[in-house]
Amino acid sequence: MTEPINPVRNQLIEELKKSGFKNEQIIAAEESRACYGYDATRQCADPMLVLLPENGHQVEIALQLAAKKQLKIFPRGAASGMSGGAIPSDDGIVLSLTRMKRILEIDQENMIATVEPGVITGELQEEVSRLGLFYPPDPASLSFSTIGGNVAENAGGPRAVKYGVTANYVMGLEAVLVNGEVIKTGNKCIKSVSGYDLTSLLVGSEGTLAVITKILLKLLPAPEAVKTSLLAFPSMTAAALAINAMFKNQIAPSTIEFLDHHSINAVREGLPFTLPEEADTVLLVEIDGTSASVLAQSQKLKELFKDDALLMIEAQNESEREQLWIARRRLSPAIANIAPHKINEDIAVPRAAIPTVITRLEKLSEKVSLPIVCFGHAGDGNIHVNVMLDKNDPEQALRGHQAIDEIFAITLDLGGTLSGEHGIGNTKSAYFDKEWSPATIATMQAVKQAFDPENRLNPGKIFP
Amino acid sequence: MTEPINPVRNQLIEELKKSGFKNEQIIAAEESRACYGYDATRQCADPMLVLLPENGHQVEIALQLAAKKQLKIFPRGAASGMSGGAIPSDDGIVLSLTRMKRILEIDQENMIATVEPGVITGELQEEVSRLGLFYPPDPASLSFSTIGGNVAENAGGPRAVKYGVTANYVMGLEAVLVNGEVIKTGNKCIKSVSGYDLTSLLVGSEGTLAVITKILLKLLPAPEAVKTSLLAFPSMTAAALAINAMFKNQIAPSTIEFLDHHSINAVREGLPFTLPEEADTVLLVEIDGTSASVLAQSQKLKELFKDDALLMIEAQNESEREQLWIARRRLSPAIANIAPHKINEDIAVPRAAIPTVITRLEKLSEKVSLPIVCFGHAGDGNIHVNVMLDKNDPEQALRGHQAIDEIFAITLDLGGTLSGEHGIGNTKSAYFDKEWSPATIATMQAVKQAFDPENRLNPGKIFP
Repeated sequence: MTEPINPVRNQLIEELKKSGFKNEQIIAAEESRACYGYDATRQCADPMLVLLPENGHQVEIALQLAAKKQLKIFPRGAASGMSGGAIPSDDGIVLSLTRMKRILEIDQENMIATVEPGVITGELQEEVSRLGLFYPPDPASLSFSTIGGNVAENAGGPRAVKYGVTANYVMGLEAVLVNGEVIKTGNKCIKSVSGYDLTSLLVGSEGTLAVITKILLKLLPAPEAVKTSLLAFPSMTAAALAINAMFKNQIAPSTIEFLDHHSINAVREGLPFTLPEEADTVLLVEIDGTSASVLAQSQKLKELFKDDALLMIEAQNESEREQLWIARRRLSPAIANIAPHKINEDIAVPRAAIPTVITRLEKLSEKVSLPIVCFGHAGDGNIHVNVMLDKNDPEQALRGHQAIDEIFAITLDLGGTLSGEHGIGNTKSAYFDKEWSPATIATMQAVKQAFDPENRLNPGKIFP
Repeated sequence: MTEPINPVRNQLIEELKKSGFKNEQIIAAEESRACYGYDATRQCADPMLVLLPENGHQVEIALQLAAKKQLKIFPRGAASGMSGGAIPSDDGIVLSLTRMKRILEIDQENMIATVEPGVITGELQEEVSRLGLFYPPDPASLSFSTIGGNVAENAGGPRAVKYGVTANYVMGLEAVLVNGEVIKTGNKCIKSVSGYDLTSLLVGSEGTLAVITKILLKLLPAPEAVKTSLLAFPSMTAAALAINAMFKNQIAPSTIEFLDHHSINAVREGLPFTLPEEADTVLLVEIDGTSASVLAQSQKLKELFKDDALLMIEAQNESEREQLWIARRRLSPAIANIAPHKINEDIAVPRAAIPTVITRLEKLSEKVSLPIVCFGHAGDGNIHVNVMLDKNDPEQALRGHQAIDEIFAITLDLGGTLSGEHGIGNTKSAYFDKEWSPATIATMQAVKQAFDPENRLNPGKIFP
């Protein structure tokens, strides 16, 4: 079936070409547009038009033309987001920033990288590591996600315990407002208190306030050494006590990942080491820094838990380190064996609330008769909660949704938040007013209106 | 002379009393109001009324009543600010938050303190240090400034090199909007990406967006050890190279203060150690962390600079440490001997630009025939620039103002910012549009309007 002619689209294409857009930067064919309508949530949409700008000036042009015609704009990176933040509407224009992928500068003296939003995060990390520098944020998607997407969603990762999240590394931005005007925020100064912190406001705003076209990122000196250990404990409470003991004893791990007993059972077979039967919770702990401090902290770790841990393995080299990570890496595919589908959320709670949240989720699992598998970032309280079910069974699907409602209720009751690193997008917006008061939401909406009075920039995200 | 009767004030006082304000919380007498009209910039104003709320609810009441009468509100901590951020207008109400000084909770497990804005920063540090915890931001004013003021101005301090500034520790806020409604931002979660980051937007907003009534602060485990060294170099360039060499060699000092040759000459007499004649720049370096890592880094420091430093003293105990700090602490009073007055600014530049900025300021000093003394935070590029002059000499005063214009021009030319830690307030607002583009300022103003459409909350600050 041929698509009906869309005069708005046709006119826009003409104007874009007149303004210097090349044919291959304008995607109008139905079958090609489809490639820009999905994201990692498996939602699909069919945007009216897709543009692939190659520089900030073309982003300005696109936004100016869209403003004239009052069209909606949906910025997009690699679309690896887990909350629907990149899903367009059928009457919207997708602005895919994947062609803006230049590393513009690595300023070694100031330890700051200036990059375009389409740079793949992992590639940036490799590039700076060749210079002895380090960009710490490590979302699981880093080998394919873009730094622009990371900034828009304020991506986290296992290293957040010690190094924080993307927001902690963004020193400045260049962004195009919905009317096509350019703003610059921040600078290369470590201290800067001149006016409002628009940088932090744009980070994590999920593409709803402006289109980011340039990013200044703080870098660190690469750590000299890293040491990875796997520890097994007989209960989540014992593991949580162990984590607190680490912090109290000046051990500052870069990573503390955990696997609950469902997760352990899912990956136990075929591990390159033997987990004791009684192991209920496994912690994967990484310590990095200067060689001296890594050595001292690792020794302290061993002393601290020589009695309490059921098992403690310390990797002696890179290949042993990889072996310890196998359990964590195999998790996502392995839990697929528990049930055909999963609904996964990335709640976060204050770190000390982890044992309580796990206990309450176990009770919930019994109540809804669905397995709930938990793993994730124990060091920072960010838990990946997976409700395992068969979505084709309507009765299970219903219980699954009931479980999600209760998971959020438990999380908020414990002082937690709907999302630790995935963002709200369109998948969690219905729960947004459970977390924030009407006055707080109204304030956020007033900020949105200040930036985007016609609600044309990534509409339908965050707010209920 | 008796003041004329002010019917608006009298009516307001009646309503405040009806709403539970006690007599001693309402300051209407002219001579007492004067105590709330100044700040560290020595500006003076005479606010219409001063209120001393004792809890968040009273702040709400005050703002609701002010809203009804469309009166201006000026929040205020200890008024130790250096940019006029706390200066009221004569028709405004000062809201002094110094009575809201309770430490509400120190959550040791999550390492988070919840405090009211009037808590003295140094007192909070002492309180948490008794529990083995650490609140790093250390503005020079910490023994009398309030944490609320620190948050409103995003205060820095010497430790920012390693530990960052106040913004890096604020996890959440409770704040009252100009209409009297309460918002809560952030939470106790280390990772949280649910909606816009209003916390970071309020930090450093200089009391222009909302009145902060509660603050959640991240704490760290107290460092085991600290080692202080003083190093003298023959030039600023040599000192700057030394700083870069530290970072490249995995030395991560918590503090790198510097004194230029004017500063050195001002304090040279009577120091408990002898500075070589050729010393042009002195660095005061502190390294903290685990005992093992402090030892390793201190040894590396000594090796690195055993040839290049003209002098290197390492403090062996707390009293020797105090002796090394004497040079830095005596600076402010000592430079007063150079000239009767000083105009001091706290510019910041990208760290690597420090030698260039110092060279250009020396040329400027010759051009305007006024001594320009520089010291401050070499590790983070934040320089306290002091133009020394006799303000009573109109010709010198004129050259002083010319110098300030050029200091900001040089700073911005090198990618710097008007203020590293003092804020814009009303003393630097005339320069604000030199740093930011019209579109960026318009965006900040739109945010201001979103929070405070009638411009009643600390008006006259930040914007030109």
